[in-house]
Amino acid sequence: MSQQRWVRLSTEKPTSTVYVLGTELSLDVCGSAPAGATTFHVHKTLGVNYVVHDTKMSKIPSLVTGWPLDVGVEVIVTMHKSSWRVNDGQVTISYYQANEETPMATAVLQLTCVEVSLDTDSSRSGTVTKRVADKRTWTWGPEGKGAILLVNCDRDRPRTQGLDCQDEKVESEEDLKDMSVMILTTRGPVDIFKKYQLVLHVSVSEKDKVRVFQAQEGREVSQYKAVLGPRNASCEVKGSRDQEAVFYVEGLAFPDVDFSGLVSFHVTLLENPSKKFPATPIFSDSVVFRVAPWIMTPNTLPPRTVYVCSISDSDEFVDEVLELAESRGYSCLVEAVEELHRESENPGVVTDVCRLVRKTNDRDFVVAVSKLARESKNTDFVGAVKELTWKAGCALTVCEGEKNHGDRWIQDEMEIGYVQAPHKGFPVVFDSPRNRELKDFPFKDLLGPDFGYVKREPATDQVASQLDSFGNLEVSPPVTVKGKQYPLGRILIGSYISRAENREMFKVVRDFLFAQQVQSPVELDSDWLVVGHVDEFLTFVPAPDRKGFRLLLASPTACYKLLKQKEQEGYGDALMFEGKLDTCSQVKIKSILADRDLKSSNEYFQKCIDWNRDILKEELGLTEEDIIDLPQLFTPEDPSGQAAAYFPNMVNMLVLERHLGIPKPFGPMVNRQCCLEKEVRWLLEPLGLSCTFIDDYKAYHQKHGEIHCGTNVCRQPFSFKWWNMTMP
Amino acid sequence: MSQQRWVRLSTEKPTSTVYVLGTELSLDVCGSAPAGATTFHVHKTLGVNYVVHDTKMSKIPSLVTGWPLDVGVEVIVTMHKSSWRVNDGQVTISYYQANEETPMATAVLQLTCVEVSLDTDSSRSGTVTKRVADKRTWTWGPEGKGAILLVNCDRDRPRTQGLDCQDEKVESEEDLKDMSVMILTTRGPVDIFKKYQLVLHVSVSEKDKVRVFQAQEGREVSQYKAVLGPRNASCEVKGSRDQEAVFYVEGLAFPDVDFSGLVSFHVTLLENPSKKFPATPIFSDSVVFRVAPWIMTPNTLPPRTVYVCSISDSDEFVDEVLELAESRGYSCLVEAVEELHRESENPGVVTDVCRLVRKTNDRDFVVAVSKLARESKNTDFVGAVKELTWKAGCALTVCEGEKNHGDRWIQDEMEIGYVQAPHKGFPVVFDSPRNRELKDFPFKDLLGPDFGYVKREPATDQVASQLDSFGNLEVSPPVTVKGKQYPLGRILIGSYISRAENREMFKVVRDFLFAQQVQSPVELDSDWLVVGHVDEFLTFVPAPDRKGFRLLLASPTACYKLLKQKEQEGYGDALMFEGKLDTCSQVKIKSILADRDLKSSNEYFQKCIDWNRDILKEELGLTEEDIIDLPQLFTPEDPSGQAAAYFPNMVNMLVLERHLGIPKPFGPMVNRQCCLEKEVRWLLEPLGLSCTFIDDYKAYHQKHGEIHCGTNVCRQPFSFKWWNMTMP
Repeated sequence: MSQQRWVRLSTEKPTSTVYVLGTELSLDVCGSAPAGATTFHVHKTLGVNYVVHDTKMSKIPSLVTGWPLDVGVEVIVTMHKSSWRVNDGQVTISYYQANEETPMATAVLQLTCVEVSLDTDSSRSGTVTKRVADKRTWTWGPEGKGAILLVNCDRDRPRTQGLDCQDEKVESEEDLKDMSVMILTTRGPVDIFKKYQLVLHVSVSEKDKVRVFQAQEGREVSQYKAVLGPRNASCEVKGSRDQEAVFYVEGLAFPDVDFSGLVSFHVTLLENPSKKFPATPIFSDSVVFRVAPWIMTPNTLPPRTVYVCSISDSDEFVDEVLELAESRGYSCLVEAVEELHRESENPGVVTDVCRLVRKTNDRDFVVAVSKLARESKNTDFVGAVKELTWKAGCALTVCEGEKNHGDRWIQDEMEIGYVQAPHKGFPVVFDSPRNRELKDFPFKDLLGPDFGYVKREPATDQVASQLDSFGNLEVSPPVTVKGKQYPLGRILIGSYISRAENREMFKVVRDFLFAQQVQSPVELDSDWLVVGHVDEFLTFVPAPDRKGFRLLLASPTACYKLLKQKEQEGYGDALMFEGKLDTCSQVKIKSILADRDLKSSNEYFQKCIDWNRDILKEELGLTEEDIIDLPQLFTPEDPSGQAAAYFPNMVNMLVLERHLGIPKPFGPMVNRQCCLEKEVRWLLEPLGLSCTFIDDYKAYHQKHGEIHCGTNVCRQPFSFKWWNMTMP
Repeated sequence: MSQQRWVRLSTEKPTSTVYVLGTELSLDVCGSAPAGATTFHVHKTLGVNYVVHDTKMSKIPSLVTGWPLDVGVEVIVTMHKSSWRVNDGQVTISYYQANEETPMATAVLQLTCVEVSLDTDSSRSGTVTKRVADKRTWTWGPEGKGAILLVNCDRDRPRTQGLDCQDEKVESEEDLKDMSVMILTTRGPVDIFKKYQLVLHVSVSEKDKVRVFQAQEGREVSQYKAVLGPRNASCEVKGSRDQEAVFYVEGLAFPDVDFSGLVSFHVTLLENPSKKFPATPIFSDSVVFRVAPWIMTPNTLPPRTVYVCSISDSDEFVDEVLELAESRGYSCLVEAVEELHRESENPGVVTDVCRLVRKTNDRDFVVAVSKLARESKNTDFVGAVKELTWKAGCALTVCEGEKNHGDRWIQDEMEIGYVQAPHKGFPVVFDSPRNRELKDFPFKDLLGPDFGYVKREPATDQVASQLDSFGNLEVSPPVTVKGKQYPLGRILIGSYISRAENREMFKVVRDFLFAQQVQSPVELDSDWLVVGHVDEFLTFVPAPDRKGFRLLLASPTACYKLLKQKEQEGYGDALMFEGKLDTCSQVKIKSILADRDLKSSNEYFQKCIDWNRDILKEELGLTEEDIIDLPQLFTPEDPSGQAAAYFPNMVNMLVLERHLGIPKPFGPMVNRQCCLEKEVRWLLEPLGLSCTFIDDYKAYHQKHGEIHCGTNVCRQPFSFKWWNMTMP
């Protein structure tokens, strides 16, 4: 049913009104009938069409000379082309008494046909589609209709402050491209729009979610005015003979717990017959947008840019040098180094100390300090990551010391996802509420032209826990679970569940993640780990077969099985941690196997991982064949007994398509080869994966993190478009 | 697929674990296989069942002596009865080398079968149903599953403060009946629950929406403890051989913009093999509740109680007496009355003034003052409403002066709806944020045993507008619109749309109404009225035919048509406002018809109503035959030009089934009969409706309201249960 308007007639004077193309006028033939009239005739001019329905009679008797006057009789009038002149269409109702041939009265309706249409890219083709049916509802799926809006959360002009959506200006042509086009078409005689007003409006409760700019022909985009937004829920628009008013719409807010993401705009035509009264609405056209959700990218998507921090641990270096100097009795040097440390800036102190030490001419000492100096920086690690990105053909961005302030955990500070509309898309960094030394990096360095930014922080009195770091926020590749498709995968977040006290990520962050709808989150149990992040026990790698990926899980059982096998093969004395610990502190396979406490702890940790394995199998629809157990041991930390990796945690790897940057485990050397590395290669290389083991021992592992914790990746978006999802 | 748990085996020592009835254990036969093993056999004791799947082979060759050891081979173990003794079930996996007949190793799994089940009234029968499949999802419709929770928003013990859900106590058996029962069944050998812990928990983000009390056998309900709620998201529960732990769940919050209404509870079984480590989860059962929405009741539902305010306008009375006294030159009396007014309490002043006036012995004066005295109270009006409730067979509650503090607009202060669960339901008053003199009445006088209370107020700095009064909040009878059913009708709210500035009800109130989901609101335009409430131009009355109701709309056009007809019939001199205005101020039909300003104003007001008519037809799926136009004129008020009823607004009626209490219009008297009353009877009586015209002229009409504004109704709930709705 098209929009229908009830029109009252009069037998005293002609009634004049507009007809809006595509609607129906339902004439009040009974209401204007004079007393005594029993039937009516309808006459009309060219260009006007009408039908008469009788809801009570299925068929009007053919002998009837006119239509019976009855509340059940409907006269529906339509027109098909916008008028050239005001009142160029006319319908006349003639009223008859029974058995009379001359009408006792006539009611004249003068009509002007206008076109008023608000249109968007409702077919999601990238351009505005006109004259679409049912523009008021937004539907999901390949056959779905309804336009899409981006939160204009990037910053197209670098010198400006804040996000593009935070000011009321169009910054540039680039800024405009992030917005969705909405066109108001009006057609009709010029004079008619003097009497009829057009108002563009949005619900008061939705106005703070969007801003609308009106294009002004011949003007710079910077002169375009914000006509709707948080400060205006409605504005008047001029109609004209044949005009398209072009509007640009930007989203101001992502879907969230109190915002479905849907925003409707309405254009209302108002009749304004006299200055004495306000105008009355007679027609309204509406369009609906959905704000594009923030989407996470799993490891199976190709990487674009890898981020890593360049770190210089001068304090740690100085402490280590002092310890060495004291043990060697260089008391003067101790004093000199201490003074240097007090005086100099951090970056210079390492070089200065090395210069001092060289003056001792104590060769062993100088060599040892040089090694410490090298290790105090993560230069080798950054180099190794760079090499990996080179192999994978993606870019590397090194976050330097003055930006990271000594915080190396760039995985925890942010998660880079993206937003997408048919006309445009760009990456968006979700800044975690963790707020340690890296806290300004996402806003200051990632936010920029076509790189958006979003943040969720709780009320000020809440302190972030480990759970709020985004190493605890991952996403699976696309899966199908009991027939239900998740073509963009499912978000995985770690919680502390089922024990004495439940703990979770901040509600504002959880709410945000759930409200995006398209990557329905799954909650895992990460309570048993000291750091408590899901990336400490799981990752996903691409695979050419099956579901296109494998889930890798850290596995104490697999590790014991491997070590036992090596012992049985006669390598019980093989040492691990080679080059990382003094030879006397190195650990033998048989001493690991003999450590009953370590065994029972790892049995417990394995059970914790197995519970997650059960959840992952159920919620991602996986079978055992989709899972690979990576050998890994954990050790309980005092006093909580929670798990930390015993040797570099291999599952905490950097996945760049088929290139894996895996923490070098420094496992037991069997035939001059690390048996853990060999095992991992044996498990992963058949999938076409290339394993690069990277030494992160001192700079990351000993600080309770590994490669994945110390890197971040901006990946290509899914080729699958989120609006094509089928939603329940 | 039932819940599946991955169980690791060992060839070194027997593995002991529990099996939870209804789940599956998937055995890690490969992981525990010794090197060199190629096949395995499975042996099991009575009561244990197993199946072997091979995901790679469709059929296992029949000549194979054992199962091949391959990651694709799954051994699934189940049991069917809870164990009597710990470890009374056993599965043995024997591993074989190729072509060997003696097993090279065996892995033993000792099993104890326990039952752990969390159950609710998921079938919505009023009692808990056990062993239901898929308890985790809540679905709508007659075939839907999932339990229902009431917000315990009544106050079962009158002496307590606040709502029942605002304290952590069970007040009484009655209080308990408002809650939903949740049963945790545990069965198994007593000893097993020493090693295995049970935790009942709720998501941290849902914990402030519910409270759970645990029943304690042999104890008073007042001793039941709140085990989950805003302060606890989890609690430990003791398991035992054959026990049902009974819990009572109360809702704390209605569905709202940030709360879908769904709350899940989980019971998790944790394995606790040693004191050294925390327990690990091995099984979890979940149930889901939906908090019952607040539902409004349309005019077509039978009334239970009508509310009306008893009013005494002593100030107005005194002013009027003073005017009279002055005009008659009783200057002493003027002084005396003024003093009385200053000194005495409001209720007494009327009697005292009458006593003084009687002393003048001026008969006309005494009569006039007596009339004023009678009119200063709405006793006649209250009496008329009482008579109507008596006819309709429902109760009447009069809100006395000390409770209403002179505020007569009880329709505007509150809306009485209800909540319903399969086990219980009760009326709930929604207190408007209008907060005038009646503001304490809903909380102090309606809240009580099985009478709930809910309120939504915006942040303190916002002042309520006329739109926030609940005369602007109505609900239609059940409708079907383009195939979509609204079996509980649709909420109607008035907004100020489409003009210079949009205005709406407070967002918190709108959000609440939309979030209830089951009566999808429709927004109308009430901008053109001085008071701005939808009940000023529409109402619904029951009808025996068609959709079961008619929509009544105030109609200036219908009124002009009627008056013109009367003039044509020769009654142009008929007077209206008889007895309400001096004879010289009374209005003739012909003077109304001659008033061009009144005519043009009413044409404008008719257009405003017609716009709403178009919206109502579309959004409620109505045709012209479902609508009756009630003759009504409006007059524009200075300075806004907005509409006020010219004579008592008949559409603002009290509908008590077939008994209508209609504002007496005091229309033109034709043959000693009010022609407006006659017309309305002629329109409504054929539907079996009984029209009682009640004089509300002075006490309501002259103060911009009528009978509907001055009354409120608690109606019977729908027989249709909301959870049987089919939702998109």
